[in-house]
Amino acid sequence: MGFSRAMVLLATQSEGRRTLVKEGLRAGEDHASGSIQDSLDLIGRQGRIALGSHETAPKTLVQKREASSSLVDPLPHSGADLLPSFRRAPPSCAASVCIERATMSERVPPPHGVMEGKGAYNKHARIQASGVSLAVPFLESAARRIIPGPADQSIVIVDYGSSQGKNSLTPLRAAIGTMRSFLGPNRPILVFHVDQPANDFNTLFEVLESDTDSYALNDTHVFPSAIGRSFYEQVLPCDHVHLGWSSYAAVWLSRIPVPIPDHFHSSRSTGAIRTEFERQAAGDWEAFLALRAAELRSGGRLVVVLPAHNDRGSPGFMNLMDHANAVLAEMVAEGAISIGERERMILGSYSRKRSELLAPFARAGHFHGLSVEACEMFANPDSAWEDFERDGNKEALAAKHASFFRSTFVPSLATALGPTRSGEELGAFGNRLEVGLKDRLAQQPPAIELAVQAIVLAKLPAA
Amino acid sequence: MGFSRAMVLLATQSEGRRTLVKEGLRAGEDHASGSIQDSLDLIGRQGRIALGSHETAPKTLVQKREASSSLVDPLPHSGADLLPSFRRAPPSCAASVCIERATMSERVPPPHGVMEGKGAYNKHARIQASGVSLAVPFLESAARRIIPGPADQSIVIVDYGSSQGKNSLTPLRAAIGTMRSFLGPNRPILVFHVDQPANDFNTLFEVLESDTDSYALNDTHVFPSAIGRSFYEQVLPCDHVHLGWSSYAAVWLSRIPVPIPDHFHSSRSTGAIRTEFERQAAGDWEAFLALRAAELRSGGRLVVVLPAHNDRGSPGFMNLMDHANAVLAEMVAEGAISIGERERMILGSYSRKRSELLAPFARAGHFHGLSVEACEMFANPDSAWEDFERDGNKEALAAKHASFFRSTFVPSLATALGPTRSGEELGAFGNRLEVGLKDRLAQQPPAIELAVQAIVLAKLPAA
Repeated sequence: MGFSRAMVLLATQSEGRRTLVKEGLRAGEDHASGSIQDSLDLIGRQGRIALGSHETAPKTLVQKREASSSLVDPLPHSGADLLPSFRRAPPSCAASVCIERATMSERVPPPHGVMEGKGAYNKHARIQASGVSLAVPFLESAARRIIPGPADQSIVIVDYGSSQGKNSLTPLRAAIGTMRSFLGPNRPILVFHVDQPANDFNTLFEVLESDTDSYALNDTHVFPSAIGRSFYEQVLPCDHVHLGWSSYAAVWLSRIPVPIPDHFHSSRSTGAIRTEFERQAAGDWEAFLALRAAELRSGGRLVVVLPAHNDRGSPGFMNLMDHANAVLAEMVAEGAISIGERERMILGSYSRKRSELLAPFARAGHFHGLSVEACEMFANPDSAWEDFERDGNKEALAAKHASFFRSTFVPSLATALGPTRSGEELGAFGNRLEVGLKDRLAQQPPAIELAVQAIVLAKLPAA
Repeated sequence: MGFSRAMVLLATQSEGRRTLVKEGLRAGEDHASGSIQDSLDLIGRQGRIALGSHETAPKTLVQKREASSSLVDPLPHSGADLLPSFRRAPPSCAASVCIERATMSERVPPPHGVMEGKGAYNKHARIQASGVSLAVPFLESAARRIIPGPADQSIVIVDYGSSQGKNSLTPLRAAIGTMRSFLGPNRPILVFHVDQPANDFNTLFEVLESDTDSYALNDTHVFPSAIGRSFYEQVLPCDHVHLGWSSYAAVWLSRIPVPIPDHFHSSRSTGAIRTEFERQAAGDWEAFLALRAAELRSGGRLVVVLPAHNDRGSPGFMNLMDHANAVLAEMVAEGAISIGERERMILGSYSRKRSELLAPFARAGHFHGLSVEACEMFANPDSAWEDFERDGNKEALAAKHASFFRSTFVPSLATALGPTRSGEELGAFGNRLEVGLKDRLAQQPPAIELAVQAIVLAKLPAA
């Protein structure tokens, strides 16, 4: 083990059928020699959820161990004290979810699922922007159906996984506009943008304060704010939120369950590896829903937008991913990255099928008080490809696809680089990967056939 | 004029005696050749307040001009349309204050009053930390007296001017601890940390999530968030806040009213220059109070901690400032900075006397519904000097004072550097100034005799 580890297990039984497990990793003095699993643990340690069904677990169980065993292993149940850094349990009102936390250290790379900073994601995430625009009518419709409650209380809207905010402006402006029609112009509306602590919040606030599309510019009774915490934790009080929105964010898992041989994307995994990803994605989705169910008020609505599988059952961009994978192989061959670094490069994202989105609701028709009001899929036309069909400019097409890849996925891949890498080396890694990808894409422009799905959930008043 | 300017004037009459003035500057293509006043305008444009008393002003007046006249000049009243970027007027419930806003541009330097990033301020702001600790009992006492309201509503605490959060942890933990004694363990508490959009919010969120002193670690019903907006604007709805806290932040003015010849600190100004700073400080203090009065709930409390004048009527650190001023003169002589850059270097901070803090309340005994519950001054012992008295280590003393100066004041001074300066040059400026200051301080260690004052304000229920 390249770094010392303190693990904490906190288990309580809730709702008579679920068990909470809370674990923590403390980054130590030296993890330069860490194994792949160490790296996965580090990458994933920003927030991990496990939903168990330990019917026989005791009401409260607090454990600590100093061990080298993998997080994938089941945790041994030997009691000890709870470290101060890991003392945060879910609020008593909250769903039975399990959260792994650790202290931050300057040497720890940013967690996966953080988008490229300095506004790059805002500029290049056009595919996501296009998917969002298809889902805006669902958000407007959901906004129309919330129960606003007493007139002297503020309305609360939450953007779960905001990144730098640009792609949130249009949907939130639409939702606020819809609400104003029945709230009137003066009812205060609080908007919370939630993302991980390492997110580029400076760009977010600049966008909110000065982008001409900002929902906050022309409505003086709207008050934006941000929460720097993983949405795999509870981020606001129970029964607090009128309207939730999450777009292209819940595709990111709370952790990477296993390494993937010879690729970095879970869609290229098979067999037992694929099963582990499916299991992780199912658990994370249930945890996400349970947390949001706790935060929503009665009558509140949650709209989640996610990449979908297209008609061929594929995420539709795997040829882009395969080209990037080939560039990474070139980079290993030329010594730009080590074999160990390459092996640790795995995206913690997973494109769920419609059946996987609906699975938590299948048994009882509802889940933690949430019920499904709509679940629809659309083709998400690739504007870069449409431009190419008009102008035949292969270079421009390749540049757009490479920028999209870089702004969305490269920061997560870069977390696998060794801890001795400088800021310049991290930048050079992104540049080399983007340029190599662009060169390959210009030679064989891939057709990208994307789809997007939106699910609308309601927390209905208790009968 | 080195940059194009669009100015907007919006005036409404409120409370029968005050007038709002709203202006905006739009950074243009080229401000490399800007004058000192241009630079002041740019530096100050993040948020400026003016309180007027235009008894004869019409109810609503919206104006725009394309002009080169200084912001210090009174604005001409010729009507035109309102630019979209500047449309945000105060909420109808809000105090009659006036806010100047403009769009952000990548080329614009960060506004003054932002502390050094990457956690440096957290590490080196010991003088502020010591002053804060003296004021904590006032915050605890204020927390005890709030009116918590209905049990199903969250408690709202706001930290106005949080910087990177380290110095907020102890006071907020104390306030929350006090409140828990009468709220019980489960009442949700929302904590908002307010600072300018350019503030280092990543360090803030890391501190909140993982510092062992964080108030959020052991209380799962506390929910931290951040607001990236100047506190010279309304940042939360009216009647929303139970407890406000602001420490070493309201010393920063909303703008720099005039250049100061031969120094960068207002305490070395005299005559008409000094009068302009006094006027700006008085207006900003009234605006700050009026905005907070609007945001506070009935029964809410606001505690403001500020540097004070010591028994000799001085801020107590002017010998430190004079040494820094001498280093800047050396840097001009050696060509490290230009004369123009040096002339633009002015701190927009102003240490108010006790009489200035109390002035808004002098006439009626209250101001915008706020009344003074306490206003006290303390000597604020300099821990670096106490260490020096024990160990006689001049080098260590000089290093601590130089780091304090750098983390608190250098980012504001650096905004005066020309727009063509690279990130490396900005860093080199800070290094040269810190090293030069440390050398001078090690030769003649200055005695620093600081004082701190705390004012406690209550928004009492309407009779």
